[in-house]
Amino acid sequence: MSKSECNHARRSMLKKSITLAAGVGATAATGTTLATPCANKGDQAFDHVYDVIVVGSGFAGMSAAVQAAEEGQSVLVVDKMPVFGGNSTINGGAMAIAGSATQKEKGISDSVELMVQDMLESGRGMNDVEMLKLVCQDTASSAIWLEGFGVEWKPFVQHFGGHSVPRILQAKQSSGAGIIRPLIKAAEAKGVEMKKQTKLESFITDDSGRVIGFNALVNHRYERPSSGEAKRFGARKGVIMATGGFGQDIAFRQIHQPKMTDELTSTNHPGANADALKQMMLLGANPVHLDQIQLGPWTSPDEKGFGTASQFNTIGTFPKGIVVDPRSGQRYFNELADRRERATKIMQNRDEKGQPVYPIGFTNAEGASRAQTLEWGLKYDVIKKAENLDDLASLYDMPAEALKQQVADWNKYVRQGKDEQFGRPLASAIELNLGPWYAVRMWPKVHYCMGGVRVNAKSEVLALLTDQHIEGLYAAGEATGGIHGASRLGGCAIAEGVVTGRNAARNIANKNSVTLKQA
Amino acid sequence: MSKSECNHARRSMLKKSITLAAGVGATAATGTTLATPCANKGDQAFDHVYDVIVVGSGFAGMSAAVQAAEEGQSVLVVDKMPVFGGNSTINGGAMAIAGSATQKEKGISDSVELMVQDMLESGRGMNDVEMLKLVCQDTASSAIWLEGFGVEWKPFVQHFGGHSVPRILQAKQSSGAGIIRPLIKAAEAKGVEMKKQTKLESFITDDSGRVIGFNALVNHRYERPSSGEAKRFGARKGVIMATGGFGQDIAFRQIHQPKMTDELTSTNHPGANADALKQMMLLGANPVHLDQIQLGPWTSPDEKGFGTASQFNTIGTFPKGIVVDPRSGQRYFNELADRRERATKIMQNRDEKGQPVYPIGFTNAEGASRAQTLEWGLKYDVIKKAENLDDLASLYDMPAEALKQQVADWNKYVRQGKDEQFGRPLASAIELNLGPWYAVRMWPKVHYCMGGVRVNAKSEVLALLTDQHIEGLYAAGEATGGIHGASRLGGCAIAEGVVTGRNAARNIANKNSVTLKQA
Repeated sequence: MSKSECNHARRSMLKKSITLAAGVGATAATGTTLATPCANKGDQAFDHVYDVIVVGSGFAGMSAAVQAAEEGQSVLVVDKMPVFGGNSTINGGAMAIAGSATQKEKGISDSVELMVQDMLESGRGMNDVEMLKLVCQDTASSAIWLEGFGVEWKPFVQHFGGHSVPRILQAKQSSGAGIIRPLIKAAEAKGVEMKKQTKLESFITDDSGRVIGFNALVNHRYERPSSGEAKRFGARKGVIMATGGFGQDIAFRQIHQPKMTDELTSTNHPGANADALKQMMLLGANPVHLDQIQLGPWTSPDEKGFGTASQFNTIGTFPKGIVVDPRSGQRYFNELADRRERATKIMQNRDEKGQPVYPIGFTNAEGASRAQTLEWGLKYDVIKKAENLDDLASLYDMPAEALKQQVADWNKYVRQGKDEQFGRPLASAIELNLGPWYAVRMWPKVHYCMGGVRVNAKSEVLALLTDQHIEGLYAAGEATGGIHGASRLGGCAIAEGVVTGRNAARNIANKNSVTLKQA
Repeated sequence: MSKSECNHARRSMLKKSITLAAGVGATAATGTTLATPCANKGDQAFDHVYDVIVVGSGFAGMSAAVQAAEEGQSVLVVDKMPVFGGNSTINGGAMAIAGSATQKEKGISDSVELMVQDMLESGRGMNDVEMLKLVCQDTASSAIWLEGFGVEWKPFVQHFGGHSVPRILQAKQSSGAGIIRPLIKAAEAKGVEMKKQTKLESFITDDSGRVIGFNALVNHRYERPSSGEAKRFGARKGVIMATGGFGQDIAFRQIHQPKMTDELTSTNHPGANADALKQMMLLGANPVHLDQIQLGPWTSPDEKGFGTASQFNTIGTFPKGIVVDPRSGQRYFNELADRRERATKIMQNRDEKGQPVYPIGFTNAEGASRAQTLEWGLKYDVIKKAENLDDLASLYDMPAEALKQQVADWNKYVRQGKDEQFGRPLASAIELNLGPWYAVRMWPKVHYCMGGVRVNAKSEVLALLTDQHIEGLYAAGEATGGIHGASRLGGCAIAEGVVTGRNAARNIANKNSVTLKQA
């Protein structure tokens, strides 16, 4: 549409939005569809005006909102879904922190530099080093900031794959909800307004190209793409995009990774699609690393989403148990390698027909003792229990003698302090002598998008054409690309979300205001 | 600029283009810079009008131009550089062909399916399988088509890394010029017009969003970005983008691969930047795999660009010699692995300080006999000659006994038909018994961009927003993304360029025409 048509968008949006698929191509040029950016004409009024609008209510969005309110801004958070929190409420609530008080208590020596180095190694050197350092530098202070709102951590530090040292604090609830709920409470206490079922449709810019708001559908129902009423939202200082990744957008992820078909499920919430990313790209944002899509190596094919296996494996099997090929009863990878390496190894394990051979991850009662999901996993028959190794072998049709020899070998490695098979770090390992045994079948799921829009150290979105920032547009968390390079380490999404959300908020607070007219 | 301002672009382009860097951000929204797409107003006239305009004059561009002329279209080819041919005239002129006459003569059994399988393996399954099959199916017929214009191949078939069988035909001249020159001659004979120093600045669309031409700078001098006179080019059927990759665009490639700094040189011509890609993206094209940037494993740090080492290695060292670490005199990778694996292995070879340890590739007189660059390499002291292995060891400060043992081991592998070290295929291998020996130091260079815009089987560019085609916009060759997945095999760029260029031309010829007014 032309600029003048753009002004009438809200009146005609419902009618027009169904023509999206027909208005093919060259949309940035002629704007034949509603989803392209619109320039605001003259002093056209907005339905709602705030200093700062945050799109998305996960770790990045809520951290941005709370921080912006602390900086004295009027803040609105919108989320397209019927519940707040996105993926952040359904993950494990584990945050990588370099230099936490708990690390110090436990005598674990860690540093910002070591965390940067670990993330660079996992990222295959593809990381945006400036943003990576920015994140790592502020994890310890951000953890304390979260504690101020009532976030409670378990009293021990966990060792996740790819990290050189134990550096994971996990919310007491074993869920990101243990972080999101206190943040939402804090936001509301500070006067942040929150609107659910409000979906950004297209950006609104002023004549200089600065983002001053967006067209949105309110009372939107996610399962009906064009549902809801069109409203114009104005942001005097700018918009912070905390819109996450596209792990559930099967069509879009297959464009970049054709093998990630619908046969591969995801740990993400159903709204994790590329819609917001596309709007940023149509505005001129620069997408990086869109083909770097992470598979979580800790999930089970015997349940949906994260399920009960993820925590059982990250807290039990991987650090304190072993993973074997059921055909041989033998280990075939380093259970504490980074996610990419583990997921690749697991997925390469196939029979002559190319069908998956699900590996068996197991540990004993001592190794599983901190896995709060154990009980539920057993109840739903995802996690199985065996009194001895013969029974375990028989449960999964494994060769019993070979399995027992593998366990004996493993115990020798633990005693000698050296994994002769795969060089796994043994700081958290235990000897596996006594049953009962707990085991799961494993297969990866689509978990995290390393790619997203390129940002600068102010969390401003950078333009493809000039590599200079787009005025008024900020992004934080999974919506951005580059921080993790080729593969993110566990616990680093919460670290990134909280730190970059706060960073965006601090910088947007310092931005000059534009005057916007409210209807 | 607004639509009406867009119409005056050619008059003010020279003045305005220097404001590009200042008109930061949100350009697709408000068009404050000239580089954004412009909608054509009413019946505004064009300076030049053709049925089809091809941008770029490499393998893809010239194949498209010749094919379009054969389909009865009036055709213009533009190239921003002062010479035609782009990278295509400065590469080795090697084309992968499944089912060539020469293969049949030599008794080599090959198939389209096997070539697809090899490329999928190298591409780590990230390939666009539909486009991949389209390319492989038409290599044999396209080779014959090229022969019809006077392209002459060497009378033998070469075995490049990652291919299961020997399938490479190479232009007699050992250079892509041996293909490009006949194509240019054929194009001119068929009435194709060719304009050098003509740089696409921004697309022009009609009210429906269809691409009907572009603004360009003519008499452009590459080293002065805004030089030249603004002209409007109209294309009744559409524009074919054959604009190659961005291997020389250090800033852009570092956004995707931060390690590919200016310390890493490139085999590409100096104009190989992301300018055209960015214009397609701003128009709404969908970029894929931009971070998949290939390093050529056959180059030497002792000369610029392809130099003399590339042919010496691809035709000599890799199939008929071995590559060793000078510190140990030992091989450390499969010399016929795909490019990605070899480049990675070479670049991982570093000393305690992280400085490169250049491996030594060598073969004997028999192995080097077909390397036409041998003489020049020796003359410039890039390739070195040694009468015996002791002298070779001494030239590069290698342990002589270990080197001799490695050569003896290698000869045993060749005799027994099995490489016990790295499982290298031995079809082309020879026993290395007699000197003299010829050797080079090796280090990779940035060579090819697997990424680019997403296209469909008609070679139409697909829109980010809808995954439907953008009317009037076609792309072919390296400018497109997805065919090669994570890593291209040698010889497959010419195959891709020729086949997809012709494919684009055949499909654009069937497109309806729009009426354009000529000034």
